Amino acid sequence: MNVHAYLKERQGLIDRTLNRYLGECRQHPDKLFKAMQYSVFSGGKRIRPILTLAAGELFGAKQKTLLPFACALELIHTYSLIHDDLPALDNDDLRRGKPTSHKLFGEGIALLAGDALLTEAFDLIARLKAVRALKPEVVLDLIHELARAAGMDGMVGGQSIDLEVEDQVVNLATVENIHLRKTGALILVAARLGAIIERATPKELGKVSRYGESLGLAFPIADDILDAEGNSSEASKAETRAAEGSRATYPSIVGLAAAKARAEELLERCLKEMKPFGKEAAPLREIARYVVERAS
Amino acid sequence: MNVHAYLKERQGLIDRTLNRYLGECRQHPDKLFKAMQYSVFSGGKRIRPILTLAAGELFGAKQKTLLPFACALELIHTYSLIHDDLPALDNDDLRRGKPTSHKLFGEGIALLAGDALLTEAFDLIARLKAVRALKPEVVLDLIHELARAAGMDGMVGGQSIDLEVEDQVVNLATVENIHLRKTGALILVAARLGAIIERATPKELGKVSRYGESLGLAFPIADDILDAEGNSSEASKAETRAAEGSRATYPSIVGLAAAKARAEELLERCLKEMKPFGKEAAPLREIARYVVERAS
Repeated sequence: MNVHAYLKERQGLIDRTLNRYLGECRQHPDKLFKAMQYSVFSGGKRIRPILTLAAGELFGAKQKTLLPFACALELIHTYSLIHDDLPALDNDDLRRGKPTSHKLFGEGIALLAGDALLTEAFDLIARLKAVRALKPEVVLDLIHELARAAGMDGMVGGQSIDLEVEDQVVNLATVENIHLRKTGALILVAARLGAIIERATPKELGKVSRYGESLGLAFPIADDILDAEGNSSEASKAETRAAEGSRATYPSIVGLAAAKARAEELLERCLKEMKPFGKEAAPLREIARYVVERAS
Repeated sequence: MNVHAYLKERQGLIDRTLNRYLGECRQHPDKLFKAMQYSVFSGGKRIRPILTLAAGELFGAKQKTLLPFACALELIHTYSLIHDDLPALDNDDLRRGKPTSHKLFGEGIALLAGDALLTEAFDLIARLKAVRALKPEVVLDLIHELARAAGMDGMVGGQSIDLEVEDQVVNLATVENIHLRKTGALILVAARLGAIIERATPKELGKVSRYGESLGLAFPIADDILDAEGNSSEASKAETRAAEGSRATYPSIVGLAAAKARAEELLERCLKEMKPFGKEAAPLREIARYVVERAS
């Protein structure tokens, strides 16, 4: 399969669906909504929602049932980027080469746009008709999985640890812990949601989870490698990190070669977990390869 | 009924339940969790969750089914206060006479504690066993109601309008709109959730909704009156507002006497809507009286 064509088609699907969901008749203030739209449609690669679709389709789930969860994940990812960029956290002026939300709309609106996107993620799942076709206990399990991955035990917890160790010398275990929570938790749950929706067996869910966990760690390591080599499209972020000099990344602790070896090892684990699914798992395999190999 | 004794008993119940829910075995970072606990247990009056309990009990709902939703509401209210106090919005140093979250834990942790509390609100509903006894479509309706009231069409939308008009001369309609969204939406949904859980008839839900809407407007008007008279327990907030001089409140536009008359008129509406329910609605009546009359 041509992974680039596959991703592009899927990105288009996610973009159109997000646009439709967000556009449903509402009473929100203009400026807030513009800020939300700006960040949602600012060129994200949509890896998380694409993972949900791919994992769900592996077990025969329908696209229309998967899309509300896939899009909720992308809204949560987007809110986390807006808040992460705020002066209270990373204080970044640019993201993907464009002004960050608070640079364009002010800190107050950026903060609120993040809050609104997080809230909207849960509202999507609760209000969309396609979700109501699922078994109710499955829907509540899915919301629980999503919230747990996004909250204090997952992504927000990871951001908090990242902040706490900001000016400290940290070891590899700490960097892995931050990566696994801050980025990994949402990648892992992206894959799990797809499998849970179609009620994969515990054994199947185990494989998808190990795939998701490995990919969730490989993803930020690949980002670290891109940053270290100065190949990041987020030039400003790489520069900021380099200038600060203090921020612990995978390559800064084990060196670039070992970081690359670790990413490759994690990719191998992803591929191994997908082996029993044969050809049907080609999308999940190729997504993993794409995520890791952009950095090598 | 003795409303003070009633509220105190209910506050104790909500406090104990929140403590139990938040204390369930987790893997969150210490500092983040301490910040969450600090704001959740900082002396809130628990009006919103108490409203949910009272409205639910009016229709015969069980306390254990109501508590997850009541507590989710209080977590959402708490997150909104933390974010509202941040320098990006109100920049308040004190709340209820104590240092605000960002003063104590730093802006980054305060931001994340708010994010985590909002996420945890939805997780509570999704994971607690008591919720799973409800009809599934009712649970999704409840989550949708809650998210809509909290998000861009409700509370966050109100904060956004409040921010946009910060340095403008505004009219009464704008102040009412801000009040109805920023404070009113969560008060309204607090009452509605209770009625929806026990599947009140459309007519009954209509009465509870009109009660909730009137109380949701009376509540911030009463706060404005307390601020204007300098009787607010949030002394710092009143001083800040007075010092800024620019922030539009109900009394600053129509005068103190007219503001009080408006609050009384809204209270009368609350009482009128509850009349057909007779004695059973005493708690909802007394809560409304308590909210409005603390300001008169």
